[in-house]
Amino acid sequence: VISVSVVGSKLASPTDSVEIGHTRVRVYRLENFQDDRGGLAIIDFLTFKPFIPQRIFYSFNVPKDQSRGQHAHKTCHQFLVALGGSCSVELSNVRETHQIQLDSELYGISVPPMVWTSQRDYSKNAILLVLASEPYREDDYIRDHDEYLSTMKGRS
Amino acid sequence: VISVSVVGSKLASPTDSVEIGHTRVRVYRLENFQDDRGGLAIIDFLTFKPFIPQRIFYSFNVPKDQSRGQHAHKTCHQFLVALGGSCSVELSNVRETHQIQLDSELYGISVPPMVWTSQRDYSKNAILLVLASEPYREDDYIRDHDEYLSTMKGRS
Repeated sequence: VISVSVVGSKLASPTDSVEIGHTRVRVYRLENFQDDRGGLAIIDFLTFKPFIPQRIFYSFNVPKDQSRGQHAHKTCHQFLVALGGSCSVELSNVRETHQIQLDSELYGISVPPMVWTSQRDYSKNAILLVLASEPYREDDYIRDHDEYLSTMKGRS
Repeated sequence: VISVSVVGSKLASPTDSVEIGHTRVRVYRLENFQDDRGGLAIIDFLTFKPFIPQRIFYSFNVPKDQSRGQHAHKTCHQFLVALGGSCSVELSNVRETHQIQLDSELYGISVPPMVWTSQRDYSKNAILLVLASEPYREDDYIRDHDEYLSTMKGRS
């Protein structure tokens, strides 16, 4: 397990990434403005590099001892930002696991398909905003870990 | 000034709205799931009625005594949701002003173009998520209230 924080870390730049198997999870710093009125962060789909979002969703009021996710997507690409608090994102494939602590509204991580992902340790008030490259399709989800492992082994 | 809350109010259903001049600001209840792991709210652009989002942004860490917005959009349509707290949205045209208290992750308001809009009274941890129908163009903004009033009077 490698632990990185997207804030206060050398990893927090638009080109930073962790490699999981043959896929790369990238950290992006969002366009933002800060002044006396607070902060404003922007994702303009015209210039957003990872993909053109087709769907957004957000999880909230997640109890500290609960975890969410625990699935992989066959083709859907996702972008995760923690708002108003922090949560820990666990990303894994067959061989390795990475933990990324999301703790800033200014940074997001771009997670390619076929990465087994879960989120835990939501702080009070934390909201995890997710942008997705596809509309919802249940058959894009792999929710069974054994099925995930066998699919990945079949590909390598 | 009419004060409505999108929660705990008869106005909180997908068909509720306030009329401002000849434009209608609608309240939408978002698709959502609630269980032991917390809440999940979803906006799937394929079925999202107001418009297809081209851009999102969010304001955060806004001091209680500050206000944001104070402009109108010539053609951009916006959808506002308060996450993690509450804020008050003031919507006005030449003749009337409405206050809408956003205080739930499950409801958003759809604001058509040419409504003068500002936000204030952000609670601690409140984040205002905005979906916009267009990429950013500075010339879509009317930031001068006198210019807004004269444009509106020229139309009526």
